[in-house]
Amino acid sequence: MSVLNCVAAAAAPKPFGHYSQATVTPDGTIWVSAQLPVGGDVSVDSSVPDQARQALANVLSIIEAAGGSVESVAKVNLYVTDMSQWQTVNSVFSEVFGEHRPARAVLQVAGLHHGFAIAADAGAWRQS
Amino acid sequence: MSVLNCVAAAAAPKPFGHYSQATVTPDGTIWVSAQLPVGGDVSVDSSVPDQARQALANVLSIIEAAGGSVESVAKVNLYVTDMSQWQTVNSVFSEVFGEHRPARAVLQVAGLHHGFAIAADAGAWRQS
Amino acid sequence: MSVLNCVAAAAAPKPFGHYSQATVTPDGTIWVSAQLPVGGDVSVDSSVPDQARQALANVLSIIEAAGGSVESVAKVNLYVTDMSQWQTVNSVFSEVFGEHRPARAVLQVAGLHHGFAIAADAGAWRQS
Repeated sequence: MSVLNCVAAAAAPKPFGHYSQATVTPDGTIWVSAQLPVGGDVSVDSSVPDQARQALANVLSIIEAAGGSVESVAKVNLYVTDMSQWQTVNSVFSEVFGEHRPARAVLQVAGLHHGFAIAADAGAWRQS
Repeated sequence: MSVLNCVAAAAAPKPFGHYSQATVTPDGTIWVSAQLPVGGDVSVDSSVPDQARQALANVLSIIEAAGGSVESVAKVNLYVTDMSQWQTVNSVFSEVFGEHRPARAVLQVAGLHHGFAIAADAGAWRQS
Repeated sequence: MSVLNCVAAAAAPKPFGHYSQATVTPDGTIWVSAQLPVGGDVSVDSSVPDQARQALANVLSIIEAAGGSVESVAKVNLYVTDMSQWQTVNSVFSEVFGEHRPARAVLQVAGLHHGFAIAADAGAWRQS
């Protein structure tokens, strides 16, 4: 029997490689894999807000499939290739999370897979 | 009622955007947002040790407001723009944490908001 | 008495600086420090697969010393200096983890200490 619960959300992209979309520990912590803005009509040519919205939508689909919700998101890491997009990304973040304000880090990485402008991962809590 | 406890520490900088300084899950895990060296007299022109000290002071103020302490810091991520500062940053880290040795990652990012040289976030535990 | 359990695994490299290889919170979350591919015969001149294998071996040695196992790894962050190594790194990851698929992020950093090509850290769960 597995120690951890591995999450497979139909509404989010299937893993490209050897990982789960998320795992859940016995205490209820949800560890979400980094999500690129894959899905919908979003491509590397889409605007940064559209990419941000899609990456976060993927993260939230996975958290919901794991038994969490928008309000149970503990921390989000946003990986951007251009820090000057901070304000733009913050606006989308605000729009997506509404009244809930998770902890957050916005980190400028040296590059993202496939040339996307943003990726996101998260830690969350599964309500029981 | 909110699932998570959102932390607001008066001794640390108010969030610039849509996030909380930290969130606490029901089991007692504290997820701290990335902290820039904002506060005191520190600016982007301050020395790297001064920036490191202020970023860590902000992280610890938040952890204390969340019910944790220096000894309950589980892991710190240090985001630096220049890896050659490793030794300098390690010395400040040692001075700040004293006998406690948290887990740690020192990561060289492609840039930090406002041109700072270092930022820090953390996972910690709330004593009950 | 310390709040957290600090881990010291003989099979993994001793910390270079002021940190523990990992800490364990009272609920059983294992926070593992970033591990460079130090150990065995691996150097900065070793192939990327050899570096990836050694970095992950260090992470797993620490998790086992902390009371976890391959199957209890919740999330792994892989820090690479060249994202074009994604496929290569994914293959090693698959080989190391076998049937278990943890959550994962592959992040391109601006540089790693000592000029290595990859580092890894992780969150895991201690079986009780």
